[in-house]
Amino acid sequence: MSAVQHIFRGERLQAFSDAVFAIVATIMVIPLKLNIKEGDIPSDYILHDHLYNLYPRYLIYLFSFVLVVDTWYSHSRIFSIVEQVDDVIMWLNLLSLLFISFLPYGTGLISHFQASRPEGFELAVSTCSAIIILTGLIMVVMLLYAFRKQALLHPEVADNTDMRSLKIGLLTTLSVNPLLALGALFFSLFHTESTQIISLVFFYCMGLGSLVVRTVIHLYHRRKCYSLPDFATSIFRTVASKSRTEAFSDGVFSIVATLIVLDFTATIPTSEAVRNNHGGNLRYALGSTRFIYLSYVASFCIVGLLWFVQYGMFHFLKKITPTLSFINTITLCLVGGIPFVSSIYVIFISNEESLKTMYSVDNQLVAMRASVVLVFLVGLSQLLFWSIALYQKRECLSEEVDRYPAEILMFVKIMIFPTVSGILFGITFTEGISAKHVYGFVIATTPFLFLLAKFVFLIQECMKTRAV
Amino acid sequence: MSAVQHIFRGERLQAFSDAVFAIVATIMVIPLKLNIKEGDIPSDYILHDHLYNLYPRYLIYLFSFVLVVDTWYSHSRIFSIVEQVDDVIMWLNLLSLLFISFLPYGTGLISHFQASRPEGFELAVSTCSAIIILTGLIMVVMLLYAFRKQALLHPEVADNTDMRSLKIGLLTTLSVNPLLALGALFFSLFHTESTQIISLVFFYCMGLGSLVVRTVIHLYHRRKCYSLPDFATSIFRTVASKSRTEAFSDGVFSIVATLIVLDFTATIPTSEAVRNNHGGNLRYALGSTRFIYLSYVASFCIVGLLWFVQYGMFHFLKKITPTLSFINTITLCLVGGIPFVSSIYVIFISNEESLKTMYSVDNQLVAMRASVVLVFLVGLSQLLFWSIALYQKRECLSEEVDRYPAEILMFVKIMIFPTVSGILFGITFTEGISAKHVYGFVIATTPFLFLLAKFVFLIQECMKTRAV
Repeated sequence: MSAVQHIFRGERLQAFSDAVFAIVATIMVIPLKLNIKEGDIPSDYILHDHLYNLYPRYLIYLFSFVLVVDTWYSHSRIFSIVEQVDDVIMWLNLLSLLFISFLPYGTGLISHFQASRPEGFELAVSTCSAIIILTGLIMVVMLLYAFRKQALLHPEVADNTDMRSLKIGLLTTLSVNPLLALGALFFSLFHTESTQIISLVFFYCMGLGSLVVRTVIHLYHRRKCYSLPDFATSIFRTVASKSRTEAFSDGVFSIVATLIVLDFTATIPTSEAVRNNHGGNLRYALGSTRFIYLSYVASFCIVGLLWFVQYGMFHFLKKITPTLSFINTITLCLVGGIPFVSSIYVIFISNEESLKTMYSVDNQLVAMRASVVLVFLVGLSQLLFWSIALYQKRECLSEEVDRYPAEILMFVKIMIFPTVSGILFGITFTEGISAKHVYGFVIATTPFLFLLAKFVFLIQECMKTRAV
Repeated sequence: MSAVQHIFRGERLQAFSDAVFAIVATIMVIPLKLNIKEGDIPSDYILHDHLYNLYPRYLIYLFSFVLVVDTWYSHSRIFSIVEQVDDVIMWLNLLSLLFISFLPYGTGLISHFQASRPEGFELAVSTCSAIIILTGLIMVVMLLYAFRKQALLHPEVADNTDMRSLKIGLLTTLSVNPLLALGALFFSLFHTESTQIISLVFFYCMGLGSLVVRTVIHLYHRRKCYSLPDFATSIFRTVASKSRTEAFSDGVFSIVATLIVLDFTATIPTSEAVRNNHGGNLRYALGSTRFIYLSYVASFCIVGLLWFVQYGMFHFLKKITPTLSFINTITLCLVGGIPFVSSIYVIFISNEESLKTMYSVDNQLVAMRASVVLVFLVGLSQLLFWSIALYQKRECLSEEVDRYPAEILMFVKIMIFPTVSGILFGITFTEGISAKHVYGFVIATTPFLFLLAKFVFLIQECMKTRAV
């Protein structure tokens, strides 16, 4: 059949999509940003209350991040059976990326207007639902198209005898989120309290729903005594391949690491501003923002080292199970919060303006605690990831990890962030110590702890080699 | 030797670095952004003059983009001989990424203060030079470290008899930019007119300098009758492998496609703004920004289809030559300008406020022409890329391209954007036609031209198959 010419390898399309999904997931954090401009902080501003009152938005952030990752899982599942792509798949894929890239806008609406019923609520929920439905629809079309043009499918799938049950299973998993979104959309149209609650329930079930359906399908196939070949069952069991998870994680880490450059490139003053505010002294004008550079360096280093730890763990990973993938998502979601915390830090610790306010000392401590707690949580979830991987050692890890001292060195690396941030958290409650300076000192020395760990092991090994 | 344990595959480190370099290159466009807020346009604002006066900034943008790409080439060259990485390489790499990510800030300073001599000039040039020097230094250290630990090197390099001349050659290419930057830094310290011009000459030689040096080294090795094995000479001849060029391009395209989401997620009004400006009507408040969504959709589609064309060309590419790589860089640089043009479009075409100004019609036409010209240039550079690839067919392209109708279909795809934008440019000069509506119509129909081209070829092929 000559119609199936012009087919391309699918890898680059996957890499491009991974990047877009990672960007979309990472900019979900934007609606969290505080609505205060530097140098314009009310004198009775209490950061603690403000951060506390934002808690619905944290949940929405978590939810939207998981939702994007879930959509990305669907994408990943489609391309685990579609090996070759043609123009039509390319266009459909671009269209689905276009729709999903509207999601930060949709969840931004929810962040702002969830509480303002009925009008704002209806608009926010229906916009978001429409985005999910459209994205899902395109993906379903993409899958059906691929099944029609069998030349595009993975050879193992094409040889599959039970193509039909594979198709139905995949379509079911793809439809869960759009159907739930349809429910949410429907109920949001009625302006009564109770229908809106139902709508919200539908809406927030999305991330969870597809998990449940996937498990059901998996169990169903298992009960039918493996009617599907290994390859096909593995599609429902696994979520995304290791290499795609790595690509997605790399995307998130690299964007988070550089997102703050955007902020501080924007701090370059215009010539007029230098003339008016700093007496024409450019050096002074730029110097006044020096803490922003330092905090950028600090967060870049933290993000870089967290990526380094993740890199190490994934190196030993043979295969990524659904549990590990879920924990990895949570880790990435927490990492995505770093630009938010870093922006708080810049406003309340580095900024001399903020010292003039009434609660400046309290606000400083709260800003420090916020950043320390976030890093602690990231460290903790990495630790959890590694513990579970060790628990499922046979299934998940390569044998390389057993070679002494790989496992111990990895463990030491993983422990550095939780330990350091735990100690720092304690210090912020200690009176008499200038927490700000300790904080700066510890952040500056953390990278050296990694070096230290490395050198201790190197020396130990050298001594051993000599002894032998 | 037991010290060289814990070495990892280098691919993921490269992928992460590609992403960071792509982000850094893409956000170079930010200092270009117009300093006007929507709804706050002076009544005698003439967009044409404003865009015209920005021309030094376009050059700086072009220069900084090329500079980042050049640094990325160096990175790519290092990792064409370093196959495995250990912790030290990882840390050095992160450090070099940290330094390079300051470059948008540095070139932003140059954009703003190049004209304000002597103080602003000195600060801007010296900041930028320092960034280049530090990045280069780290890369040199990285290379020397890799040469010391030969277990990290590519097996073909390790077997290389003439390791020394390879090392010297690589170090020379790595040092060109930092040395030029050192020159620029040195001369910028003197506050006389002539030294500052010398400083600028040094500075702007950077992108070009490394090209010259690479050619010299290549010719030198050639004269010595291939004293280096093929693998090593290819390091100096090629710039970056095809797969890394693809990864970098994917990064740029995906960020450009989604960068505008950042802008329009920021347009979500607060509850107070809705109450004060739109009489509490949220639907109306969101509706007032509907053109922003449309222009986002338009630019996403344009970027997506440009990526699609590039994808197609790279599919047939066997190998990327320095010339092709250079043209690809120019294409990417132009693509990076799309968010800038799109922001102008949003302000001057979509925005009802801008219609109240004196020169609103002229400004609209200029905004249209700016976007059309940019797309035309991107299309043109893709056409140039393909023409050169066809010219060097034997060296560059796979045989697949000879199979009718692959070549013709590719050519049609490449021609769509230059043709459409050329016609649109003409239309903006035609009186009597509502240019704005034609413009919108053409943008909305362009994706269908791609579909049309595809279907024409499909039908033709089907008919042929039947005739046979």
